[in-house]
Amino acid sequence: MIKEECGVFGIFGPEQNTAAAESCYYGLFALQHRGQESCGIAVNNEGNVTVYKDMGLVPEVFSDDVISRLPGRAAIGHVRYSTTGPSIRENAQPLLTRYSKGTMALAHNGNLANTDKLRSSLEEQGAIFQTTIDSEIIAYLIARYRAICSSVEEAVGMAMDQLEGAYCLLVLSRGKLIAVRDPLGFRPLCLGQIGDSWVFASESCALDTVGAKFVRDIKPGEIVVVDKNGLRSITDRCRSQQHSCIFEYIYFARSDSNIDGVSVYQARLEAGRQLARQYPVDADLVLGVPDSGLDAAMGFSEETGIPLGKGFMKNNYVGRTFIKPSQGQRENAVRIKLNPIRSSVEGKRVIMVDDSIVRGTTSARIVRQLKQAGATEVHVRISAPPFLWPCYFGTDIPSIDELTARKYNIDEICRQIGADSLGFLKLESLSKLTGSINYCDACFSGNYPSLIQKD
Amino acid sequence: MIKEECGVFGIFGPEQNTAAAESCYYGLFALQHRGQESCGIAVNNEGNVTVYKDMGLVPEVFSDDVISRLPGRAAIGHVRYSTTGPSIRENAQPLLTRYSKGTMALAHNGNLANTDKLRSSLEEQGAIFQTTIDSEIIAYLIARYRAICSSVEEAVGMAMDQLEGAYCLLVLSRGKLIAVRDPLGFRPLCLGQIGDSWVFASESCALDTVGAKFVRDIKPGEIVVVDKNGLRSITDRCRSQQHSCIFEYIYFARSDSNIDGVSVYQARLEAGRQLARQYPVDADLVLGVPDSGLDAAMGFSEETGIPLGKGFMKNNYVGRTFIKPSQGQRENAVRIKLNPIRSSVEGKRVIMVDDSIVRGTTSARIVRQLKQAGATEVHVRISAPPFLWPCYFGTDIPSIDELTARKYNIDEICRQIGADSLGFLKLESLSKLTGSINYCDACFSGNYPSLIQKD
Amino acid sequence: MIKEECGVFGIFGPEQNTAAAESCYYGLFALQHRGQESCGIAVNNEGNVTVYKDMGLVPEVFSDDVISRLPGRAAIGHVRYSTTGPSIRENAQPLLTRYSKGTMALAHNGNLANTDKLRSSLEEQGAIFQTTIDSEIIAYLIARYRAICSSVEEAVGMAMDQLEGAYCLLVLSRGKLIAVRDPLGFRPLCLGQIGDSWVFASESCALDTVGAKFVRDIKPGEIVVVDKNGLRSITDRCRSQQHSCIFEYIYFARSDSNIDGVSVYQARLEAGRQLARQYPVDADLVLGVPDSGLDAAMGFSEETGIPLGKGFMKNNYVGRTFIKPSQGQRENAVRIKLNPIRSSVEGKRVIMVDDSIVRGTTSARIVRQLKQAGATEVHVRISAPPFLWPCYFGTDIPSIDELTARKYNIDEICRQIGADSLGFLKLESLSKLTGSINYCDACFSGNYPSLIQKD
Amino acid sequence: MIKEECGVFGIFGPEQNTAAAESCYYGLFALQHRGQESCGIAVNNEGNVTVYKDMGLVPEVFSDDVISRLPGRAAIGHVRYSTTGPSIRENAQPLLTRYSKGTMALAHNGNLANTDKLRSSLEEQGAIFQTTIDSEIIAYLIARYRAICSSVEEAVGMAMDQLEGAYCLLVLSRGKLIAVRDPLGFRPLCLGQIGDSWVFASESCALDTVGAKFVRDIKPGEIVVVDKNGLRSITDRCRSQQHSCIFEYIYFARSDSNIDGVSVYQARLEAGRQLARQYPVDADLVLGVPDSGLDAAMGFSEETGIPLGKGFMKNNYVGRTFIKPSQGQRENAVRIKLNPIRSSVEGKRVIMVDDSIVRGTTSARIVRQLKQAGATEVHVRISAPPFLWPCYFGTDIPSIDELTARKYNIDEICRQIGADSLGFLKLESLSKLTGSINYCDACFSGNYPSLIQKD
Repeated sequence: MIKEECGVFGIFGPEQNTAAAESCYYGLFALQHRGQESCGIAVNNEGNVTVYKDMGLVPEVFSDDVISRLPGRAAIGHVRYSTTGPSIRENAQPLLTRYSKGTMALAHNGNLANTDKLRSSLEEQGAIFQTTIDSEIIAYLIARYRAICSSVEEAVGMAMDQLEGAYCLLVLSRGKLIAVRDPLGFRPLCLGQIGDSWVFASESCALDTVGAKFVRDIKPGEIVVVDKNGLRSITDRCRSQQHSCIFEYIYFARSDSNIDGVSVYQARLEAGRQLARQYPVDADLVLGVPDSGLDAAMGFSEETGIPLGKGFMKNNYVGRTFIKPSQGQRENAVRIKLNPIRSSVEGKRVIMVDDSIVRGTTSARIVRQLKQAGATEVHVRISAPPFLWPCYFGTDIPSIDELTARKYNIDEICRQIGADSLGFLKLESLSKLTGSINYCDACFSGNYPSLIQKD
Repeated sequence: MIKEECGVFGIFGPEQNTAAAESCYYGLFALQHRGQESCGIAVNNEGNVTVYKDMGLVPEVFSDDVISRLPGRAAIGHVRYSTTGPSIRENAQPLLTRYSKGTMALAHNGNLANTDKLRSSLEEQGAIFQTTIDSEIIAYLIARYRAICSSVEEAVGMAMDQLEGAYCLLVLSRGKLIAVRDPLGFRPLCLGQIGDSWVFASESCALDTVGAKFVRDIKPGEIVVVDKNGLRSITDRCRSQQHSCIFEYIYFARSDSNIDGVSVYQARLEAGRQLARQYPVDADLVLGVPDSGLDAAMGFSEETGIPLGKGFMKNNYVGRTFIKPSQGQRENAVRIKLNPIRSSVEGKRVIMVDDSIVRGTTSARIVRQLKQAGATEVHVRISAPPFLWPCYFGTDIPSIDELTARKYNIDEICRQIGADSLGFLKLESLSKLTGSINYCDACFSGNYPSLIQKD
Repeated sequence: MIKEECGVFGIFGPEQNTAAAESCYYGLFALQHRGQESCGIAVNNEGNVTVYKDMGLVPEVFSDDVISRLPGRAAIGHVRYSTTGPSIRENAQPLLTRYSKGTMALAHNGNLANTDKLRSSLEEQGAIFQTTIDSEIIAYLIARYRAICSSVEEAVGMAMDQLEGAYCLLVLSRGKLIAVRDPLGFRPLCLGQIGDSWVFASESCALDTVGAKFVRDIKPGEIVVVDKNGLRSITDRCRSQQHSCIFEYIYFARSDSNIDGVSVYQARLEAGRQLARQYPVDADLVLGVPDSGLDAAMGFSEETGIPLGKGFMKNNYVGRTFIKPSQGQRENAVRIKLNPIRSSVEGKRVIMVDDSIVRGTTSARIVRQLKQAGATEVHVRISAPPFLWPCYFGTDIPSIDELTARKYNIDEICRQIGADSLGFLKLESLSKLTGSINYCDACFSGNYPSLIQKD
Repeated sequence: MIKEECGVFGIFGPEQNTAAAESCYYGLFALQHRGQESCGIAVNNEGNVTVYKDMGLVPEVFSDDVISRLPGRAAIGHVRYSTTGPSIRENAQPLLTRYSKGTMALAHNGNLANTDKLRSSLEEQGAIFQTTIDSEIIAYLIARYRAICSSVEEAVGMAMDQLEGAYCLLVLSRGKLIAVRDPLGFRPLCLGQIGDSWVFASESCALDTVGAKFVRDIKPGEIVVVDKNGLRSITDRCRSQQHSCIFEYIYFARSDSNIDGVSVYQARLEAGRQLARQYPVDADLVLGVPDSGLDAAMGFSEETGIPLGKGFMKNNYVGRTFIKPSQGQRENAVRIKLNPIRSSVEGKRVIMVDDSIVRGTTSARIVRQLKQAGATEVHVRISAPPFLWPCYFGTDIPSIDELTARKYNIDEICRQIGADSLGFLKLESLSKLTGSINYCDACFSGNYPSLIQKD
């Protein structure tokens, strides 16, 4: 399973009450799929910036009591899945730092490519680090430049000139909320409005959840500053070089989000339609593997006219920590999460649509289950090309050695997972999913954006 | 929302280790949808029956450490949603009692109709009660009759003669595991086998989860006894009067279960097909309300050829406890769980399939959301008849005064929820869902099984 | 270490608010030394009796939030250390039972001698038991007799006629608070008053803590009934046969309590004085082993004129759960709790006063520590006679086989613990401690009260 | 109540197992009286330094499971009571930082006097701070100097040259354990040995607890370095200017500790003796206020021959969090912790020895209680001079405005607390307590060490 990364949410409103923290709570909850290991909210209460964060899901970490102790007109929040650094409590975000101009909170989604170089350089100048996250480096750079700049946003801009890689930032200073998207625009970040409040979120679904109206996506390289005088945009660093992560559309983002003008749901339907055209097969039923294969399965069914069925029951309560299964139960492990519906698949030739094959073992188990439940043929269709390359921008792909597509060709993989046929979405058809926007597909193509030099 | 009730699981195996408790854990987890407030597992360790139970979900209550302290060749478990009595810890099951012949654990799914009479009668004879659940009454009756009977199963049978209403029981005594289904067979209970172990579960999906083979449903009125000599059936009280709860098919049970020979998934598909025939309408898209409307929506689409779409994104993390929303956020409450997908419904005439309308407020909010997201028409189709009568057998329907269908006719409800048209599944077509089996539809028809006299 | 037993507290006041539960909380906290494993409070809120209880210390189990949900004009509470039955949550008290006349809560301090007989007899009549505590038997008897009596207090009296052994009871019924002390008066129970409220407590220190005035001890065999008409005493079962447990004075009770007219502190001082007369020795310093040896050491010093010193520093934070010490640390285990003060004992001949020797191992370690810290002689004086017999009335003495005094004579014990001399308080001098009251010293003398027949 | 400060413990042993962390656990537990709000342990596992810390007492924060995950041959630990900065989790120690030469953990007891100046200076150079504790400043200085030094100890020495105030430091680097005491030696730090391990602790009682032999006190200004080659001392900064905090002897330290060659217990006895000579009075009984007045009371009794009695019973379970008392219970609040023993004081003229009067309210309540319990006279003796000045070195004295001794003379205070006479230990007699060592008594005398300039 490809692991997800982080999500950020911010709001700058007119009132000094807990409405900002409460919006943050709901916004983060809508982004929970982007990170489940820790979460936090920082608020600015009349210039006093404080943070509350812990390991756990948003509803586990925040209670009425905690929210009531977070008044302030502005707030930023973060949900984290570790892409860099182990999952320790110190690494939870937002990161609160005190520096020459007061206190600043920082929430960061993405992954830098030049971490090691920046860290060494800072350490040589006497810096000490208390976490293992990139975000601490960014905070340091902003603090350093702030000492020689006339404003936080200027310091943020100077820090950006040092950073290579993927980053969306929300910075909460004594008087401002600043939102930043890296010049290549890998990770999504959008702007919304509700009443007199400005809202920023990794995905538009979080705007919907708090009742905010979508205004626009933040431009690659843009710095947006909100303070008591309103919203202002700094576009010096915008270079019209979009490299939206294609995997946000295929897997990370929620179906109800729009990213850089493209509906995630429509992109997934289209992936299904493309698959159907690329690998047609005579069958009785199209099945999606819950949850991420369901949308593409719908597109496949629509394109082919083969009826859509429900192949699996997903247990609604997965996502909790389980007891360790004994040997006897281990084989049933996948069935605890997904159970095939015999009455649906028995005696049928089925097309099973999923979003990825990483190591191949999970796919093999699901195919086996379908056959045990009576499916006479199982044709596997994957709504993405095979993973072949590492991602340096925040997608947590297993190490290259584990990627089955690097070791075997399609026919071999097909045999290993026990499928009757197998098709991966063709690389060139990715552009059909996202219309006119430019995207990064380096994990499939090895074609990395030219600006980035991985250290 | 109609609330769910309870689930039971039991296993009698050859080994004195923690495999029985572990199977119980996974079995209960598969039945988690039937009860989320408390759960428990009782084991028989060489004649010594003990129990562990607490408030919370199965993975919250049971850890590796707890399971390791529950060795025994037989185990029974229970997940509870309160139908009778408040949700206090004392009411968690299985209920462990010490009586003249040793220790006994009891797990009970269902609701008695003559509780008050039985309780008064026992109290007059000096009984004391420490819980408010029906199950304690049943335990008392078994204990009393045990004093004058030659076996537990005989005592269980004599207790059954006193009980009116719905009950599936699992009883774990010093040497036996006994499974009982009430003579009208309201609630489901089935038998499975894995290796040398016999397994009982409220639904067949729990058998799948532990890798057990489905053997058969327990007959209404049947007593099944498992001990070291094997399995034995007592059928004295079977009277071929099946009254399977129709709402198990429509709502309670998991799609991947089969109950009394009928696939729940197929029943729901058929409900959708029936709806399509009964209330045809010209539209662009069929949408199911997650999760319980999705199967019927599939049947509706299949029958009409109108394409199936995804209308809503459901947040995968609901089911946790939330902070109390402030006034400003209350209107967004439903959107936290379900967010309409604008790119899917915009400019479309949609058919929205759901499984019930209770008070009408939730339906009204969902219709409003679809229209805000750009749907030009919203036609609501409900895969069950309107609720008009109370259930005495374990389905937690709100009080009659709150049922919108008792106060308004279909047209009025349609207007109130803001739909362009509205159709409820016709009462007479319920028989199409379940084939040849006889069912109880009293909550829709008021037609209660004649044997039951509610006190 | 001899383990302590239970404590009870009750209050009947004029107001329907949380003052009763709050007093109960403080009263139980003052009795915390009598039981640390679980605690609970039951309240009567306008005839509705409810309970809250859990494993843990009083401040751990009860929070402001919990207390705020316990309104009622009357309350009873319990702290428990398990004398019968394992320490499981079901065994926490007060025990809440529903019976023919409503709901009743029961708190019980003591131990019955005829438990098995009573339990069997009830089971034969069809009773089921959900705990392993004596208290459930008592609740059953009261419920049975209540069915044929005109009042709760009459039923309580009839139940008393069946009970043998030690018990102090507080019963909270729909309209009354009833306090009972067994006819031999083993365990203490006293009555106090604050404003318009009547208060009952195991020890007078709990009255002090809630600001109540001590009124009198409850008489052995007395039933005190408090209801809205005031307080009434039923003395039918009083037979002027006091058998106050001598170990309450020596060890269990708090120094600031008075029991049956005798100051516990003065009793302990006198034990020290008696010891000094019985076993004089030439020495430089008298030391008490904290905490229970300190009072007697003071009496010893006073009698002899040998100065009192502080021999040990006790860690104020013991009483929490520790990590399991590895082999290397095990020898230091006692030093974690008690560390000798070298500057106090170095080069001195010391008299070390403690309250008991059970197995001898702890005493041996303490003597060894004093010598390592430089004491030239260590004379051990024990402020009680040696344990030789089991207690059936609630004192948790280890099994007879483990009692060192049954296996060895005084000289042998002296050698084993490495002391230079050893003296136990003489049996006949116990009467000097308690003045004119009659006491039970069966654990030292084997002389059990004649009425009791242990089954 | 004067609040306590922090404690540190460190060990460098021969084995790469959990013995170091386990010793740290027990050592910190012995120092628990020095800080109860948070605690932590850092270990060096083959050059990899990690930390575990949280809010709470040592036995609450550390379990067997946690300790088992802390292997390493060296460990340092910290217990914290906040003297600077609020009690937030980020402020818990040891502080773990990554810098140019690897990872370093720092534990700090004391308080700097020039915090603000140092912090500003670092911030101007671009430093960011994630906590509000002095210790982070120290870590920064060490990291900065490390970049231009040849060893950690040299960097530590250069950092010391910047620090003013009180500090004992334990530094755990990749290869070394470094112990530092500030040049004025305000706070205690001693060295012990057990087997092949070197141990450092704030107080010698922690050495006893882990079974280590006391070797010597660390010299003011000394840097002790332990690595695989053994122990080495750097004494460049030692200037024979001892300013041991006198309040360690009077209040902070445990009676069983020796600090700079002086027994804390003997110092307290001597304070009692001095008081007896300075303020003789005819009375029947000497009482100590638990726990801190007990030792001085012993000395007072010894000097005068007036018998020592036990005046108060202290509840052994205080130290937990209580419910908020309602108005009615507030007056009993002190009695919950301390209850006078009527049988001890009734009809007596008593001398009550305590260690301090801060605001006077607690003393007044205790005197009132003694009189209510029947004491005919209450003569109060305080084993320290009155507080008149702030402490900049880690003793958390309330603000000057609240110190009763600044507003009233002795006679007025005596009247306010309701005593029959009152005596504070004379300033000049403090030297009798500590023999030949030089001490800081600035909180009593206003006579601050000349080197310190408070910013």
